[in-house]
Amino acid sequence: MKGDLTQLSAAQAAGAIRSGVLTSEALTRAHLGRIEATDATIRAWAHLDPEAALEQAREMDRIRRAGHATGPLHGVPVGVKDIIDTRDMPTRRGSAIFEGNQPKTDARLVERLREAGAVIMGKTKTTELGYLHPTDTTNPHDATRTPGGSSSGSAAAVAARHVPLAVGTQTGGSVIRPASFCGVYGLKPTRGTISRSGVFRTSATLDQIGGFANTLEDVALLTDVLGSYDQTDPASFARPRPGLVAGAAQEVPAEPDIAWFDLPYHDRLDADARDGLDAVIESLGPRVERFPASPKLADLVNVHKVIYDYEIRQNLAILHADYAEALSPEMNGAIERGGQISKDQYEDALAIKESANAFFANHFNDFDAILSPSASGEALPLSAGNTGDAVYCLIWTLAGLPCLTLPVLVGAHSLPVGVQLIGAPEEDDRLMRTAAWMQRALTANDLNEE
Amino acid sequence: MKGDLTQLSAAQAAGAIRSGVLTSEALTRAHLGRIEATDATIRAWAHLDPEAALEQAREMDRIRRAGHATGPLHGVPVGVKDIIDTRDMPTRRGSAIFEGNQPKTDARLVERLREAGAVIMGKTKTTELGYLHPTDTTNPHDATRTPGGSSSGSAAAVAARHVPLAVGTQTGGSVIRPASFCGVYGLKPTRGTISRSGVFRTSATLDQIGGFANTLEDVALLTDVLGSYDQTDPASFARPRPGLVAGAAQEVPAEPDIAWFDLPYHDRLDADARDGLDAVIESLGPRVERFPASPKLADLVNVHKVIYDYEIRQNLAILHADYAEALSPEMNGAIERGGQISKDQYEDALAIKESANAFFANHFNDFDAILSPSASGEALPLSAGNTGDAVYCLIWTLAGLPCLTLPVLVGAHSLPVGVQLIGAPEEDDRLMRTAAWMQRALTANDLNEE
Repeated sequence: MKGDLTQLSAAQAAGAIRSGVLTSEALTRAHLGRIEATDATIRAWAHLDPEAALEQAREMDRIRRAGHATGPLHGVPVGVKDIIDTRDMPTRRGSAIFEGNQPKTDARLVERLREAGAVIMGKTKTTELGYLHPTDTTNPHDATRTPGGSSSGSAAAVAARHVPLAVGTQTGGSVIRPASFCGVYGLKPTRGTISRSGVFRTSATLDQIGGFANTLEDVALLTDVLGSYDQTDPASFARPRPGLVAGAAQEVPAEPDIAWFDLPYHDRLDADARDGLDAVIESLGPRVERFPASPKLADLVNVHKVIYDYEIRQNLAILHADYAEALSPEMNGAIERGGQISKDQYEDALAIKESANAFFANHFNDFDAILSPSASGEALPLSAGNTGDAVYCLIWTLAGLPCLTLPVLVGAHSLPVGVQLIGAPEEDDRLMRTAAWMQRALTANDLNEE
Repeated sequence: MKGDLTQLSAAQAAGAIRSGVLTSEALTRAHLGRIEATDATIRAWAHLDPEAALEQAREMDRIRRAGHATGPLHGVPVGVKDIIDTRDMPTRRGSAIFEGNQPKTDARLVERLREAGAVIMGKTKTTELGYLHPTDTTNPHDATRTPGGSSSGSAAAVAARHVPLAVGTQTGGSVIRPASFCGVYGLKPTRGTISRSGVFRTSATLDQIGGFANTLEDVALLTDVLGSYDQTDPASFARPRPGLVAGAAQEVPAEPDIAWFDLPYHDRLDADARDGLDAVIESLGPRVERFPASPKLADLVNVHKVIYDYEIRQNLAILHADYAEALSPEMNGAIERGGQISKDQYEDALAIKESANAFFANHFNDFDAILSPSASGEALPLSAGNTGDAVYCLIWTLAGLPCLTLPVLVGAHSLPVGVQLIGAPEEDDRLMRTAAWMQRALTANDLNEE
């Protein structure tokens, strides 16, 4: 094949490899070339062994040539966030405490990638233990800005075309925000869709898995591959998973109904982001209904915080005891805050979370999706010292709803700004269908050209 | 839906449930009715809890009505051989030693069934620990005859329409022979396709998983659902699995080439089975090439025996030490024979097995499949005291090749006799394609009518 192979979507690349017009080795080499050319600045990778990646690629090529089965990601390079265990690569978790940590087994989701024929390209940088303290990764659109976090390397690697796909995790807004900042698609499917076995745990209630890609179809394809029932993850459900690729390709049976909640923290949005969202809403016309947010809804931000801090302490108190000096002030602070939350407060928070789930379940009888900001606006300057505000994601993450960000806006500095759509639980296929419709509607209305 | 619901194939039933014209509850009730009517004679079930099965069925109906995702086996009852762990049903393994054994977790393959939306109907009877000592299950075509073993209950349950699908295991001929005796399709895919985690181990080298169904499409569908890469099973391979349903639906690119080996143990075939196989070969005309079997090929039967006995002892010596009096003479005999095999003899056997794999891999460059008897002929009378001769399966099982039996012949007593097709490793889709072609060719030639 001619041209820049790194511009192929995962679906295009897998199709070309299956039909024999492209080898996985050529594709992987092209992406490795791009990494070599740009990663001195972007710093997306915590671990990369080009020869090992090429060997996987050649193996996928051998399998295809032998006439054996090919998988949905056959020969396609995928980046994996460095809090996800890999049996053949170190897993440092963004912390010096785990320097040299070499898992003996793959996370279940990595098993799924291997069964799909993917090339595990390497490990992408994560903030410290998937929490707040930034990594040194820079935004591929502007090296003076953050890629967002905590899945910093996964978002940056996909935006920079180091890989067509990458896996991340989200406990607050760690898939949606970096995807928005880096101008790529990010999808965190319904809680329990993708197994967390072999993924570093900070919060059993809130930790969830998601993916990054440069097209809607690709992020659907990645999620379809990653999803599986796994009894060793208590959040995993023993039910069929929806088909997201099929959902993204579906026509809507009728023009969808989309809800927007006026939430108090929207006053923290950058002016350009607010204007862009208003333009989206205006463009969609009567399809969007605006609601004042009930105080209860806004309070869920605090419910998220109580659960997160309490569970961080549950999971990381042991690290705090032994390695407090090796942990960041952000992490030590969370663990200390967790210690000031009583069991009653925590259990109250869990109960409120359950009632929120019921509220949302009911809500989706009347609406196909909720529209929301993905982040405060464009990526923050690195000098801000943090990866941005997760508040626009917290209540949806808390409720375990499927969340998708689409790179549809451009901000005041010509940097990408995402728009978030949130769907009904276990109806991620409907969310994809609605998103594909919205994307077509916004493109037809030429949103960014006035 | 009208008519006898137990006559629906799994694919038909899943389609009807998905489209809303049939409920899983109605289907499950129909099958439970059939069990109630016939299982006093057939005795296919080691554990059956009708109310628990109906509750699973109602849950699958609720999921569908809620508009949530449905799986490829949505609402379809499946039987599971009782050496396969189930977290919600006892797993007695056909031995009094394991009376009351309740696994805490599901076998990986049961996870796959749940994710596909299947109703786990119950546990099907197995010979003692999946070895030779018979269970009390009878053949649904003739209650005075054996259903074959060791997956006796799985084969009988599918033949009796207690369930459209059942899972079994094969270490010698434990899927192919009972399927042949009971007149159903049996498929043991390439070794390593389906995980054995949570399945009672008798031989790490030889134990393999397979399935039973009443149509070729159904046995393909079941295998597609069961297959997955699982790093905790050393035989499981980290590569894409072929699509068997797609394979069975494929046209052959050219009329296939099929090999037949004249093996010395073919003189043990019943006369009617031999005549039937000759008629099959004649009917396929120039598509079949007959080869004299090399002595090396025939010797593989002994290689299988050395490995099996040695590994049975490895795995079961501890039971033999504590419970010899609770084990059958067959099992105690195998464990004792295993003790007389030296490590060198065992390792020589493993090395010969490896060279056999290379022989077969090479062979499949010229042929699409090998044709073979499935069993000695019709099911043996119960009075014989055994489940029949596995010899027709041993060398294919040893090489880990995909093996399929098709119920195409009728014996002297009007009982079913299967015909076996063996395919190239990891090309189970090609085997299905070849089998579908052969089935059409034999039907066109009206094989059993002279």
